[in-house]
Amino acid sequence: MRQNDIYVKNMTLSEASDKWNKALDTIPFFASPKTSDVAVERALGKITAAPVFAAHSSPAYNAAAMDGIAVHFADLSGASEAAPIRLQQEQFIPVNTGNNLPAGFDAVVMIEDVHYVSKQEVELAHPATPWQHVRTIGEDIVTTELIIPQGHKIRPIDQGAMLATGVKQVTIALPPKVTVIPTGSELIQPGNMPKPGQIIEFNSRILAGYLNEWGAHATGATPVSDDKEKLRQALLTAAQDHDLVIINAGASAGTRDYTSTVLAELGEVIVHGVAIKPGKPVILAIVNNTPVIGLPGYPVSAILTMRLFVMEMIYNFLGMQKPVPQKTTALMSRPMHSAMGVDEFVRVTLGKVGKELIATPAGKGAGAVMSLVRADALLTLPAGSEGVGSGEEVEVELLRSLNDVQSTLVSIGSHDNILDILANILHKDRQTIRLSSAHVGSMGGIMAIRRGEAHLAGSHLLDVESGEYNISFIKRFLADIPLQLINLCYRQQGLMVAMGNPTQITGLQDVANRKLSFINRQNGAGTRLLTDKTLQDLNIESVDINGYEHEEYTHMSVAAAIASGSVDCGMGILAAANALNLDFVPVAEERYDLIIPKRYLEDTKIKTLLDVITNNDEFNTLVQNLGGYDLRDCGKLMFEQ
Amino acid sequence: MRQNDIYVKNMTLSEASDKWNKALDTIPFFASPKTSDVAVERALGKITAAPVFAAHSSPAYNAAAMDGIAVHFADLSGASEAAPIRLQQEQFIPVNTGNNLPAGFDAVVMIEDVHYVSKQEVELAHPATPWQHVRTIGEDIVTTELIIPQGHKIRPIDQGAMLATGVKQVTIALPPKVTVIPTGSELIQPGNMPKPGQIIEFNSRILAGYLNEWGAHATGATPVSDDKEKLRQALLTAAQDHDLVIINAGASAGTRDYTSTVLAELGEVIVHGVAIKPGKPVILAIVNNTPVIGLPGYPVSAILTMRLFVMEMIYNFLGMQKPVPQKTTALMSRPMHSAMGVDEFVRVTLGKVGKELIATPAGKGAGAVMSLVRADALLTLPAGSEGVGSGEEVEVELLRSLNDVQSTLVSIGSHDNILDILANILHKDRQTIRLSSAHVGSMGGIMAIRRGEAHLAGSHLLDVESGEYNISFIKRFLADIPLQLINLCYRQQGLMVAMGNPTQITGLQDVANRKLSFINRQNGAGTRLLTDKTLQDLNIESVDINGYEHEEYTHMSVAAAIASGSVDCGMGILAAANALNLDFVPVAEERYDLIIPKRYLEDTKIKTLLDVITNNDEFNTLVQNLGGYDLRDCGKLMFEQ
Repeated sequence: MRQNDIYVKNMTLSEASDKWNKALDTIPFFASPKTSDVAVERALGKITAAPVFAAHSSPAYNAAAMDGIAVHFADLSGASEAAPIRLQQEQFIPVNTGNNLPAGFDAVVMIEDVHYVSKQEVELAHPATPWQHVRTIGEDIVTTELIIPQGHKIRPIDQGAMLATGVKQVTIALPPKVTVIPTGSELIQPGNMPKPGQIIEFNSRILAGYLNEWGAHATGATPVSDDKEKLRQALLTAAQDHDLVIINAGASAGTRDYTSTVLAELGEVIVHGVAIKPGKPVILAIVNNTPVIGLPGYPVSAILTMRLFVMEMIYNFLGMQKPVPQKTTALMSRPMHSAMGVDEFVRVTLGKVGKELIATPAGKGAGAVMSLVRADALLTLPAGSEGVGSGEEVEVELLRSLNDVQSTLVSIGSHDNILDILANILHKDRQTIRLSSAHVGSMGGIMAIRRGEAHLAGSHLLDVESGEYNISFIKRFLADIPLQLINLCYRQQGLMVAMGNPTQITGLQDVANRKLSFINRQNGAGTRLLTDKTLQDLNIESVDINGYEHEEYTHMSVAAAIASGSVDCGMGILAAANALNLDFVPVAEERYDLIIPKRYLEDTKIKTLLDVITNNDEFNTLVQNLGGYDLRDCGKLMFEQ
Repeated sequence: MRQNDIYVKNMTLSEASDKWNKALDTIPFFASPKTSDVAVERALGKITAAPVFAAHSSPAYNAAAMDGIAVHFADLSGASEAAPIRLQQEQFIPVNTGNNLPAGFDAVVMIEDVHYVSKQEVELAHPATPWQHVRTIGEDIVTTELIIPQGHKIRPIDQGAMLATGVKQVTIALPPKVTVIPTGSELIQPGNMPKPGQIIEFNSRILAGYLNEWGAHATGATPVSDDKEKLRQALLTAAQDHDLVIINAGASAGTRDYTSTVLAELGEVIVHGVAIKPGKPVILAIVNNTPVIGLPGYPVSAILTMRLFVMEMIYNFLGMQKPVPQKTTALMSRPMHSAMGVDEFVRVTLGKVGKELIATPAGKGAGAVMSLVRADALLTLPAGSEGVGSGEEVEVELLRSLNDVQSTLVSIGSHDNILDILANILHKDRQTIRLSSAHVGSMGGIMAIRRGEAHLAGSHLLDVESGEYNISFIKRFLADIPLQLINLCYRQQGLMVAMGNPTQITGLQDVANRKLSFINRQNGAGTRLLTDKTLQDLNIESVDINGYEHEEYTHMSVAAAIASGSVDCGMGILAAANALNLDFVPVAEERYDLIIPKRYLEDTKIKTLLDVITNNDEFNTLVQNLGGYDLRDCGKLMFEQ
């Protein structure tokens, strides 16, 4: 056991990669991967482990390439419209496409050019060139010639070429056998509702999925509880039975992390701890000639770390080069700070708004699976960088095709549950439109429009003086941008409370007077403005609201906190209360509009969206089902400049 | 039966597509595709047929995001290095990452910032912000929120998000069931050597492979012989049991094409004959609400036609949009003429030589499977176009990734069997280099270098006067291009004859005197020059050589013709004779060099190639095994300018 290897170090990424690759070079498997001979018909998508040569020629004989007659080209020398030449029975033989060219004949005349004088005699008005309309033996490929090289992924056309030239079997690289072992006593299987402190074990499924996409044969193992001896046994067996072992630390790293200790006892820990974010506590070890990779517990960390240290290994196992990452350049919509000395990987969403591709960080939480579901690309901030500034051009690695990215409608602003309905209808109707919604509040949306980062922004900002929505804010912050303000809906705002309203809340005055717990929305949210205006009307100070400083970014997050019982109430829309089966104390009806700059009005994506909200029955029905909405002005132009 | 539909018409592609799409609209299946509920864990790569919403929130409870202690943030108000605050037992609770935040606590302090004074008392030097290091309930996603929309291909991360939020099952679109029926009495199964007139049935395998890649569940059916009643029975059963039927006409269209007649009797032929090349005789029909597509018999025609008329159908069956084709622009290396009134699809190879991407037609034969194996892209010449000129910029649809294309080393020139060995070694050694060889003869290679279309050209042009190879031709045709001439090999040229030399050939004088049959190489080939020089030395006129006008483009094609018994002899290299088990009458040893412009000498691909031919033992061994080669000067600089 090499004691000093089991503590997390802060090795640089390049140093860690070098050490790891050197260690892998000692593993016999890498020098000569396992191969298997399979029938060509079962080889689609497999990787060749040897070059494939034609077993016979194609065509295998001189073949007619047209329906017509086989002739001797010399017989037709000098034929013309004016002086056609007649051929007798022994001088021609009818042939169909694919027929063997009869011995001694050296050209084919196509049927359209043959004039049958009688069954035994034809008249031809053109000369023939030698071997015309004949597919000569080996024209396509000749015995022993190379069809496909080693390290090539077999496509349907390759299968065809092999079968056409008599190749029945092909030597392929066997996919490496990989097991993904989840660890942690807190893990429960999917399908069960987690009790506090329990975590659904889904990491092994995600990780095995990626490994299989890269070409491995990966399976998830039974989770191992936090027991050193069980862990040792599981690792030892796994290393014997597999070409590669992934062990996923479980989210509870704290006091129960035996993985590195056990790995150091069983084999050699090559790297423990790399200066990357997320993913620092990664462990790279070798046990009995089998690479064992300990990934961090958080799903996003685990996936990104596996891309860094395992993806290339899988391709190498298969004798292939890792595909070159698809990259593109984009402009940062906001600054990103990065710690010096750490390679940081940032999930970003991309949107083509106007001419520019704009990158926006998609959330930093290592546990935030949805941030990776929504992410379009990865931005690397190298160890030597302090970050990137707003508007700075960056190169990002695409996680989606650029076409998908370019068909994304970027919505930034206030959150409303209708956006989910819109996103689904726009996507499923074969319009290839993705609606990407960032929930940053109404003011955040206005600022995004100002910076040219969004096609549209949802907003419900109440001007306390005029009682009007949105227009005064547009005049103040977006004065020089020609735009339309189009209504989406009116909606009920109120206090969301547990079902049955157990604390008998009638309004914010009860929250202040009885010190009930409250959960707030962030600064700049329309709902925050409504809360503040309501408090002002009631002459309540914010310090008298218990939980005023506890901020969430969406109606649904507020509703979720109330549903969990951790707080008594919070301001939000009826649709959110309905979704989570909460009770609702109405406070106000408010207007929710879409701000759309005029230069995007001719964009097909915007046109489709406007068409859906005004003409689509399914949209109407689904919105009414959410509850608390009034679509009386939906699609109506409320203001333009 | 609608008689006039069963004859091939020349409908335009857009007219045919319109008619076909209108007919498909009447098929109930397209309105409501079949769906199935499957476990999330088995849904990787499947297409959602309904939006997926979170079944519960994630996190499902407020959870510690760090190892540390849970605190009340208010207790730490004013804490600093100078004035740390001590918390007693009831004021804090140790937590690990992922633990439930104990009720009433509202922040977590990470373990690194906790100073334990005793087991019951901690000292903290910093204030806490509300809810710091806490993943609040629903932070990632809240019950009922949209995870992924309808019509989305499920990725591993999507599976993770579904499992994390309690979704166990997902509604997916069932892949359409497709059968591919080969027809033709001439078909034999792969694995058998075709006798003259027989054709290996591999089309159904290629076609089913592509259909499956597009998302169908496609299988090949037993071939149907040319019997009208059998065909009718097969089509009727197939249409009952499948969502889509592909019938592949067999190569023998001629007198035995019953497909359209039978389809018109069984259902309705919507389109028969489209003005496209290749692919004209395509049949689009509907039998008992099942689309039936009759594809041309030649594999390349069948594949290209299926891409045009079936690919989008499969995606529509699945409720998805067809992926947007990847396109790029390139310059044509040579003119392509196209018939007016026909949409023509041309296979091209691409190569990045210097700064430009160059497109070169990859062969036009509809039966040439290898041309599609080698093709990098498709060029469409629309019906209104007469073709494209040399050097003209064209847009092409990529069949390979642009990265693969850009890592291609373009070799144009004389053919030698060593090129296959080089291609495989360069590819398999994980260098991601593809060697693309076009065999156009030595002079063709020199012209390609002159036009900037190739990185290198193989050449063995003998200057009859000086007895030198290549140099005088370079001085004449490439005078102003700085280049190096590097030797690849010396090789044995001679007359290839059947094993045992049955006609007892000793040289070309026998061919002339005894009127034996000969097969020649094309003009501009080094081997053609050698033939001509030999004839000249022997005072033989070319008209006295029977078959002098029968030209092939490679040594191997010449060898194949001799091996088939259709000709007596031809000039070629010993390696080709050995490959096809022929006998060989030596004529001369000749030098084969590589012409490499100096501006490519620093290109990694060229450097790797030069490294392989000079330092690679495997290369050496494999070349010696071919026979007839001498590598004494291999890699040596013969000339530079």
